[in-house]
Amino acid sequence: MRLRSSALLLFSASALLAAPPADLTEQYRATADKLIRAALEDREGYDRLTYLCYRIGNRLSGSAGLERAIAWSVEQMKAAGLSNVRVIPAKVPHWVRNSESARILSPEPRALHMLGLGMSVGTPAGGITADTVVVSSFDELTKLGREKVQGKIVVYNYTFTNYGSGREYRSSGASRAAALGAVAVLVRSATPLAMQAPHTGAMEYAADQPKIPAAAITPEDCFMLARLYADGTPAKVHLEMGAEMLPDADSGDVIGEIPGSEHPEQVVVIGGHIDSWDVGQGAQDDGASIIACLQALTLIHKLGLQPKRTLRVAFWVNEENGTRGGAAYRAFVDDQLQNQVMALEMDGGAETPRGFGASVDQKSMDLLKQIGKLLEPVGAGEITTGGGGEDITALVRDGVPGMSERAAGTHYFDWHHSEADTLDKVNPEDFRKSVAALAVMSFCVADMPDRLVALPAGERRGR
Amino acid sequence: MRLRSSALLLFSASALLAAPPADLTEQYRATADKLIRAALEDREGYDRLTYLCYRIGNRLSGSAGLERAIAWSVEQMKAAGLSNVRVIPAKVPHWVRNSESARILSPEPRALHMLGLGMSVGTPAGGITADTVVVSSFDELTKLGREKVQGKIVVYNYTFTNYGSGREYRSSGASRAAALGAVAVLVRSATPLAMQAPHTGAMEYAADQPKIPAAAITPEDCFMLARLYADGTPAKVHLEMGAEMLPDADSGDVIGEIPGSEHPEQVVVIGGHIDSWDVGQGAQDDGASIIACLQALTLIHKLGLQPKRTLRVAFWVNEENGTRGGAAYRAFVDDQLQNQVMALEMDGGAETPRGFGASVDQKSMDLLKQIGKLLEPVGAGEITTGGGGEDITALVRDGVPGMSERAAGTHYFDWHHSEADTLDKVNPEDFRKSVAALAVMSFCVADMPDRLVALPAGERRGR
Repeated sequence: MRLRSSALLLFSASALLAAPPADLTEQYRATADKLIRAALEDREGYDRLTYLCYRIGNRLSGSAGLERAIAWSVEQMKAAGLSNVRVIPAKVPHWVRNSESARILSPEPRALHMLGLGMSVGTPAGGITADTVVVSSFDELTKLGREKVQGKIVVYNYTFTNYGSGREYRSSGASRAAALGAVAVLVRSATPLAMQAPHTGAMEYAADQPKIPAAAITPEDCFMLARLYADGTPAKVHLEMGAEMLPDADSGDVIGEIPGSEHPEQVVVIGGHIDSWDVGQGAQDDGASIIACLQALTLIHKLGLQPKRTLRVAFWVNEENGTRGGAAYRAFVDDQLQNQVMALEMDGGAETPRGFGASVDQKSMDLLKQIGKLLEPVGAGEITTGGGGEDITALVRDGVPGMSERAAGTHYFDWHHSEADTLDKVNPEDFRKSVAALAVMSFCVADMPDRLVALPAGERRGR
Repeated sequence: MRLRSSALLLFSASALLAAPPADLTEQYRATADKLIRAALEDREGYDRLTYLCYRIGNRLSGSAGLERAIAWSVEQMKAAGLSNVRVIPAKVPHWVRNSESARILSPEPRALHMLGLGMSVGTPAGGITADTVVVSSFDELTKLGREKVQGKIVVYNYTFTNYGSGREYRSSGASRAAALGAVAVLVRSATPLAMQAPHTGAMEYAADQPKIPAAAITPEDCFMLARLYADGTPAKVHLEMGAEMLPDADSGDVIGEIPGSEHPEQVVVIGGHIDSWDVGQGAQDDGASIIACLQALTLIHKLGLQPKRTLRVAFWVNEENGTRGGAAYRAFVDDQLQNQVMALEMDGGAETPRGFGASVDQKSMDLLKQIGKLLEPVGAGEITTGGGGEDITALVRDGVPGMSERAAGTHYFDWHHSEADTLDKVNPEDFRKSVAALAVMSFCVADMPDRLVALPAGERRGR
């Protein structure tokens, strides 16, 4: 008896000392468990992703593939029982790769593995032939100066440490080299994995420099060009790129909703981008994300759940080369900004989900952590600071609480923007866990008593 | 005092109980340490490999690249101070890939990522167009029968577990499908890594079946074709292959020697194959191996060491598609078989070396383990049973003690027979450790008092 009562005493004391009960955790546990079970059992979501990847394929802005994907997405949202399914029109840039190739002519003839960078100009008909100059940084380029760079093809053999380490060379490398008289640039692909797969991505031209063609090359070819240059036998390269910019094309964001039961005017939006580069299948970037978001709403609806606020899924267009979809969505929201309760973008792949990032104040972080607890069964309960995405930049800048889904990302940049971004890279189990995490998080945020509060203007980051 | 003498007593007792001193370990320790130091400091070896990969490149039997590699190898062996440098002539098959492509025509047009299999026939001019039938095993193919296979392109979507799991589909898949009326075959690449890189390799035709074209496709494309087939929307594929077989070409093995000081007629040969597939640079398969073997002899000679028996390095030709080099070498040895003390082939890549395999009797294994102890500083001391190689099959079959160098092989089949088998895959530190291991092992075997004894005929495996 004595023993028992002292154990009871200990238990009561520890209950008194513990933090107050996590309200949202308790309030939504049953709903969350139901959603998680449904998500883990679901096969429809991965089947949708399979159709998007295998039957539609990649979908660059301006392409027929993108327009097929948009029409199909409208059908899928309607089939899922979503309301107010519509396309928010957007004019998108229409860059076309056409045929392209690069070859070493000397010291020994050899094909290079390349992909033109998105938005690059093409070469003149017949191509460009020039010796290569290899630099590992912009500093090295500057030191070489116009005398050594004029008339040459500049190769950027920067040291890859993470995706960020290469982005600047890809985006502004052409204009920086053109300023010294270069005739084209070849940029090491922004990837940790060397498997002779070139990785494309967007580049931009400075207004005050001549536009010269820019292409990604594989790490392997970049190392080879660097060694040939270091040995005093720089490669002479012939580059042909048929790339061209056509007039803007008609396209748009696809959205669908579960209207809120009490505050239908208040909106929680979750989504990703429907466009992709024109290689691979845009499976991890960003097909899995949009389909996971759609499936989250599909399951919420299927289970007969209706949050107090409106839950919207958005497939934004043109994230890769213009973000016209994000801009069109911001214009669509217009003066209803105060009714945007939260915007979440998923654009880091659907590898093992870990949790969510959020750009919100401390009290809101605490609420999100209470929701996060519900996601521990699928390992996706981690709530960290910083959340946003390319397509919701304008919303977050203007004060909407921003979030993003966070995944392990172990191999994301192995595949990203390459022919290897295909369905098989999306593990069905991980995908289903992402659906579970998105369903629980978005439902709770759309239903909970409090609204999230964005960080003060000075502390917001758009992405 | 008391304590000291009892410690001494303990020491003596343990010395008495321990195994007898490892004679070869003590005998060759100073020499081994000198060789290891030289190998780890050496830069010439990797520079040679760089030249082979970046300046010569891949070197399929019959190609100009191979003949350049052979001429260059003769020069390098002479420059290394080796004696009796020569080419043992061999006529090699001359298969040429020419241009090739595969496309899905329906349900939606899509390019496939393919590489024709070595020795395949081409398609008729204009190509072949047919629906695909996807099987995961020969059993499934047999079950489908002629009715379902006739006129179709058979896709082998076998489950990859290791390299061996795919080899049979690659080598005999065409004839097995042709027996049921198939018009071509597409075989999943034999690789654990899906990065849209097709991996080629040799195939063979059965004499009693029509010869139909055979190509490797990437795991990604194979999965897609399998899913389309399973969904009842089998892909219609258009395949064009310009592959052709030309008359046999003149080529040969390259050998060079350090003549033995006491038994010059007795030969220890170490080597790999100089030919490669016609993609990538043949860096791991098998450029790094031949250059590591050459560099081992280079350093032995440079240090003024001369073993009692002759030490020979061999760059065998045509390992990939005919093993005519191995046959020519066996003919060259002719009736001097009893003077072949040991034949070692390195053909598993130059990733982190672990040690050596050997097809020798137990007493010889003990001797090799004594030598292995000397390689512990470079982590390459492990001696295991089973050693041989494609090019020394005939020697081992006829009684020559066979060995092979063993490496970690973690990523070997990621790169093997693909565009990604390039210099950057060879870690310079690992390469230098391989050189150290080869130098110590080959020197000791060529110099030690005993000769290795092969396994009895029944227990030998050629490779």
